[in-house]
Amino acid sequence: MATKINYNQFDIVLCRTSHPGNIGSTARAIKTMGFLNLTLINPNEFPHKDANALAAGAEDVLEQVKVVNSIEDALKDSHLIIGFTARQRELSQQHKNIRDIAKDFKVESNQKKIALLFGNETNGLSNDEIKHCHMLGFINSNVNYSSLNLAQAVQIICYEIRMQLEDGHEIIQPHKENELVTHEVQNGFYAHLEQLLTEIGFLKKIQGERLMQRLRLLFNRTKMEKDEVNILRGILTDIQKKIKNKM
Amino acid sequence: MATKINYNQFDIVLCRTSHPGNIGSTARAIKTMGFLNLTLINPNEFPHKDANALAAGAEDVLEQVKVVNSIEDALKDSHLIIGFTARQRELSQQHKNIRDIAKDFKVESNQKKIALLFGNETNGLSNDEIKHCHMLGFINSNVNYSSLNLAQAVQIICYEIRMQLEDGHEIIQPHKENELVTHEVQNGFYAHLEQLLTEIGFLKKIQGERLMQRLRLLFNRTKMEKDEVNILRGILTDIQKKIKNKM
Repeated sequence: MATKINYNQFDIVLCRTSHPGNIGSTARAIKTMGFLNLTLINPNEFPHKDANALAAGAEDVLEQVKVVNSIEDALKDSHLIIGFTARQRELSQQHKNIRDIAKDFKVESNQKKIALLFGNETNGLSNDEIKHCHMLGFINSNVNYSSLNLAQAVQIICYEIRMQLEDGHEIIQPHKENELVTHEVQNGFYAHLEQLLTEIGFLKKIQGERLMQRLRLLFNRTKMEKDEVNILRGILTDIQKKIKNKM
Repeated sequence: MATKINYNQFDIVLCRTSHPGNIGSTARAIKTMGFLNLTLINPNEFPHKDANALAAGAEDVLEQVKVVNSIEDALKDSHLIIGFTARQRELSQQHKNIRDIAKDFKVESNQKKIALLFGNETNGLSNDEIKHCHMLGFINSNVNYSSLNLAQAVQIICYEIRMQLEDGHEIIQPHKENELVTHEVQNGFYAHLEQLLTEIGFLKKIQGERLMQRLRLLFNRTKMEKDEVNILRGILTDIQKKIKNKM
């Protein structure tokens, strides 16, 4: 049976937003495109009258907004996390045009929770925020001036997704789905891996963080399935036992 | 010879804008998409500090803005005039989706001046303004809440046009390529992994082959880079040493 992806699967997540007005404009932007879910990670000021003023009819989005203290909290139920950033990072995930990303959504499962992650107005996404992403997206813009305002960037991204969700309502054969992995399950694996690598002394202090980041990128790219995580964690556990038994 | 349509043929024309801040946001929006020409018909207040504040780096657009007193003045050099309005008028021109309009631009002459006409924030285009248009455009939006802010509407429209103007120029930022992994290098990794898994007793005879196959699929999907294989094999080697030393 055709399983159509829908607006409710998406969560627009704003990291460390400085100006409450931008939260209001973003609420308006997402609602015009049919989206509802907004999450704020450590906003500078919220609630705030400027947010309500700029929401202009999208107060319902603000009323049900989720405010959290950590990125882990924000993303714990997400299966696919896409961060938006204008610049290509030195060490990073695939960086794709939002139009191409949106086209791929047509074959996504209607069970997946998809988080769209936006950074602070001035600095964008931090390296720590980026490391949680499976993929990075960008908006085709003027190379000499690519400074879209936060709500304007959200507007275009939600518009592109809408254009695909509405497109002919036709659904291409969805990917064969195995059980999906939430961000929390994935982080459990990374923590376990880091623990083992520390035990065997592989993570030397200085380059340890950078190394874990590389490993995260590698496994994020592959979009792990639930039983694959189980296999990998089973391997980690057996190695740890083997090392302990021999002590 | 191919005559390519260019950004300079377009003029973004704002009618009776109430809030100068919206003029600034619009300047920013058009510049991010590569456009430069902005015309204001009877703005309520301009110049104004709010316009400059919200232009945020697009002051050059504001500096060369054209301010006129009548729609005739604004449009006198235009060959094609497209008005944007969310609602369908009872008696009106063709009302087309901006994506479809933008596609048609590809076969427009590079001699044409094209005006994109936007109404007042509250009331939109008046009937008088509409009558000057050759065509009307709209943005696909939430039927229950289609209230895009002026600058956000301009943003999407300029973005759609940009996507067509750039089409065919390779705009996708290529994935930064690290050294590729040959099949041989990859197989070396799998053999090494299998060796360790055998040592720790993880590969039981019966399901061992199937399990290795799953792991291959997982790592194949991620399209490993050369230095990633080196990291992974470094981990395998260190685990093996740790186990041996303790024996």
